[in-house]
Amino acid sequence: MYFDPVEAMDRAALEELQVERLKKTIDNARNSPFYSEQLAGFDTADIKTASDIAKLPFTTKDDLRNQYPHGLLTRSLDEFVRLHASSGTTGTPVAVFYTQQDLNTWADLMARCMYACGCRESDTMQNMSGYGLFTGGLGIHYGSERLGMLTIPAGAGNTKRQIKLIRDHNVSVLHIIPSFALYFAQKVQEAGYEIEDMPWRIALIGAEPHTEEARAKIEEMMHIKAYNSYGLSEMNGPGVAFECLQQNGMHVWEDAYIAEIINPKTGEHVAEGEIGELVMTTLTREGMPIIRYRTRDLTRFIPGDCACGRTHRRIDRIAGRADDMMILKGVNIYPMQIEQCLMSMPEVGQNYLIELVREGVSDQMKVKVEVKDEFFVEDMRALQGLQKKIAKNLCSEILLTPHVELCQSDSIPKAEGKAVRVIDRRNEE
Amino acid sequence: MYFDPVEAMDRAALEELQVERLKKTIDNARNSPFYSEQLAGFDTADIKTASDIAKLPFTTKDDLRNQYPHGLLTRSLDEFVRLHASSGTTGTPVAVFYTQQDLNTWADLMARCMYACGCRESDTMQNMSGYGLFTGGLGIHYGSERLGMLTIPAGAGNTKRQIKLIRDHNVSVLHIIPSFALYFAQKVQEAGYEIEDMPWRIALIGAEPHTEEARAKIEEMMHIKAYNSYGLSEMNGPGVAFECLQQNGMHVWEDAYIAEIINPKTGEHVAEGEIGELVMTTLTREGMPIIRYRTRDLTRFIPGDCACGRTHRRIDRIAGRADDMMILKGVNIYPMQIEQCLMSMPEVGQNYLIELVREGVSDQMKVKVEVKDEFFVEDMRALQGLQKKIAKNLCSEILLTPHVELCQSDSIPKAEGKAVRVIDRRNEE
Ligand SMILES: [Zn+2]
Ligand SMILES: [Zn+2]
Repeated sequence: MYFDPVEAMDRAALEELQVERLKKTIDNARNSPFYSEQLAGFDTADIKTASDIAKLPFTTKDDLRNQYPHGLLTRSLDEFVRLHASSGTTGTPVAVFYTQQDLNTWADLMARCMYACGCRESDTMQNMSGYGLFTGGLGIHYGSERLGMLTIPAGAGNTKRQIKLIRDHNVSVLHIIPSFALYFAQKVQEAGYEIEDMPWRIALIGAEPHTEEARAKIEEMMHIKAYNSYGLSEMNGPGVAFECLQQNGMHVWEDAYIAEIINPKTGEHVAEGEIGELVMTTLTREGMPIIRYRTRDLTRFIPGDCACGRTHRRIDRIAGRADDMMILKGVNIYPMQIEQCLMSMPEVGQNYLIELVREGVSDQMKVKVEVKDEFFVEDMRALQGLQKKIAKNLCSEILLTPHVELCQSDSIPKAEGKAVRVIDRRNEE
Repeated sequence: MYFDPVEAMDRAALEELQVERLKKTIDNARNSPFYSEQLAGFDTADIKTASDIAKLPFTTKDDLRNQYPHGLLTRSLDEFVRLHASSGTTGTPVAVFYTQQDLNTWADLMARCMYACGCRESDTMQNMSGYGLFTGGLGIHYGSERLGMLTIPAGAGNTKRQIKLIRDHNVSVLHIIPSFALYFAQKVQEAGYEIEDMPWRIALIGAEPHTEEARAKIEEMMHIKAYNSYGLSEMNGPGVAFECLQQNGMHVWEDAYIAEIINPKTGEHVAEGEIGELVMTTLTREGMPIIRYRTRDLTRFIPGDCACGRTHRRIDRIAGRADDMMILKGVNIYPMQIEQCLMSMPEVGQNYLIELVREGVSDQMKVKVEVKDEFFVEDMRALQGLQKKIAKNLCSEILLTPHVELCQSDSIPKAEGKAVRVIDRRNEE
């Protein structure tokens, strides 16, 4: 059962639909000052298959900034009814404009997302995110109403009141920021309620990046199923990709977007299943179409079919920013690859540090890894075995053998704020 | 030109429409637990004219609290898509539920309001009010999109960013809280901009009660036209009544509501033009109809026709709460009547104080009035003349002659927070 039958459309038909919509999008985009120039030399008839999209130029965040505020609009301002903007108190912001039809399309996509993870008309959804210029608030709100859920626009903050609303109105779905979820669960208990007695069933937790471990912890502590989401305001906001009940990757709505994954240095498509930069094209946005937008977000397509029956391809959770990519001996490496590899090993502790150094004419990677106390034994042979195992696992992931150094837990200095995971010493004297 | 032709409907036809919708509302309301009891003995056929509404029982805020959360709903929870609730962290809150159709109707009414005060599709509206459970945020937002204005959901706070958005996007309409407007105008100037250079034209300032003087000051300081609004969440939220370009009272949308003004003690209708408690009945709300709701808000119908051509009756700005009513020698008196009378006299200063005292078996009203410095002269004859003039003016308003005492400016102690205007000493020993 799908919110919209298009979600399970045959792949060939879906690609045909993409081609048709891409051509329409290109011709529509030509009505904007930016794309009329950008696409001047391009013949729409050269789009014959979906992969022909690679013939089109990229659009970057800098393009959006340079075109601020109206350079990408395909019609007169009168026809727009909504504007979202990035904060841009420093530097030029990015503004996204929506026609009424764009809002309807967005709400439909968002409703589909929530349906895919089990939300139904009979559910009550409490939107615990802030509203305003942030697309997460109104995006989820409109989608929830479109799906027909009873929608409580609680907004952020006021934990006590949130708890009362959830209990009074038998709230079954929460839209909650991952980093707030565990704090909230604790507050519920402090208020004297059993987590098991809370009526919730589903948490939508996509508003900020989080790890698989964080999701597992939220699910365990809150007795809830938590579903990841992907979106960015340049592509409307939330509602671009969403997890289904399988919780194994997020279906990109390919009737509304063409997703590509490229090598951020060369701009070429990566091989199927490889990590790269996500590039997105809108297929159904009439007021402000965007073609081949460089999201700077790193992810990969998850190979194979999904058990839910949806045919739209899935992307993996975001594995960092394209700007994080390292090149070592000609190989592209992302810190997130190393993190995922390390964190999948039971012996590895909380922290690690990657150092890139130059030895003679050759670059080397050193990885310092904290080992859990129970594995940090005085048996040299065992430690050397672990060291080798980590190096081998990393090599199979990044295709290079790094120098692995084991250390005790808490021996790597913790950063205030965002952790520093990579130090590049290659250009130091 | 009207957003909806119903706004200029012939009175007789409008009343016919009201009768028809009132009957439908009564029959629909019977589907709710509360009204099925409340209206058990009432025969819908007894409604023959709009004034027959007086045969129906009142609904009070306590009723809504006692029926929390579902007692007034006419259909199953599945059919509702929105819930707003009063804060109620202390005591039982009031919850209002909306079906999709109710949201559409509300957005239409709100769009009409904004159109009436000159907003058009080509305008850009910045919503500077908070969103969330407060109906003012989403209410204005949906109405603005419905009208087709480019809507910027800026939310509250962040003055610097608000100014940038207004300038970058040529914002012509602001939804701004009256008490914030003057502060904001000052911040604009501090940021180095001339008020005359700001693109705004219209301010929607209904979210909190304010005086005619406050409006005048906002208009002058901001170089803007400011329009008053009336609404309450029990009647959807904003969009119940709104000023037209005439700025002389707020048209109540009488195809969607029946408004009555009653004596809060007796429950009887007051004479046309007299102040009393506003009582409201929904005519188009399907999910949660409310019949004869005691708003506790004091106002009056403004007699006569409006030059704008709209036939729907106008209410005056809210003149306080019904609970403020005083009874003196059997006459109902509202502090706001006295305030309006005093403030219309050029000699009267900032402050006044009403004291009710018992002299023997008879009650008396004393009114202490600050006189502006330039009128507080040492000419006893002039002062006595002023005293008499004030007493006479008050008598023509409240039908009683109070004892008037003149005093110098700043001689009446100012209260912290809400001013205390009435002291009832009648039951003091
Ligand atoms: Zn799936
Ligand atoms: Zn008028």
